[in-house]
Amino acid sequence: MKFKAEIDIMPHDALLDPQGKAVQAGLRNLGLNNVENVRVGKHITLQLDAANEAAARQEVEDACKKLLANLIMERYHFEISAV
Amino acid sequence: MKFKAEIDIMPHDALLDPQGKAVQAGLRNLGLNNVENVRVGKHITLQLDAANEAAARQEVEDACKKLLANLIMERYHFEISAV
Repeated sequence: MKFKAEIDIMPHDALLDPQGKAVQAGLRNLGLNNVENVRVGKHITLQLDAANEAAARQEVEDACKKLLANLIMERYHFEISAV
Repeated sequence: MKFKAEIDIMPHDALLDPQGKAVQAGLRNLGLNNVENVRVGKHITLQLDAANEAAARQEVEDACKKLLANLIMERYHFEISAV
């Protein structure tokens, strides 16, 4: 079965996010003054073949832990759906 | 009222995504051979003050068009929820 995973990888809330601060400053320069707490992370989509949803979930979990997210600085969250 | 926006910015499907290809190669090196069509984009969260949900939506739309997404190469999608 084919599954699609949508993965979000964000910096931990406790950490500063300089890229988010820069984006926030940019938005203020454009006149969007009421925006705050901007944080920038990654969004990764992928497709995979797996026997069932639990197997697909386990595989994406592995991918996040081993390669996609740096768990010292980032947390991940994903959703899986059958294609 | 305070709203929270979750914005995904992804490369257009028609475009090559070298970063996604690199991630896919990395996953294969780790033994995850059944992963394909990996694409990497940005996930941005922000909070904003607005009179109502329609106003908040308009403002995030503006932010995406003017700063966050490069519409030549990327498409954006967002969800808004009251905080």
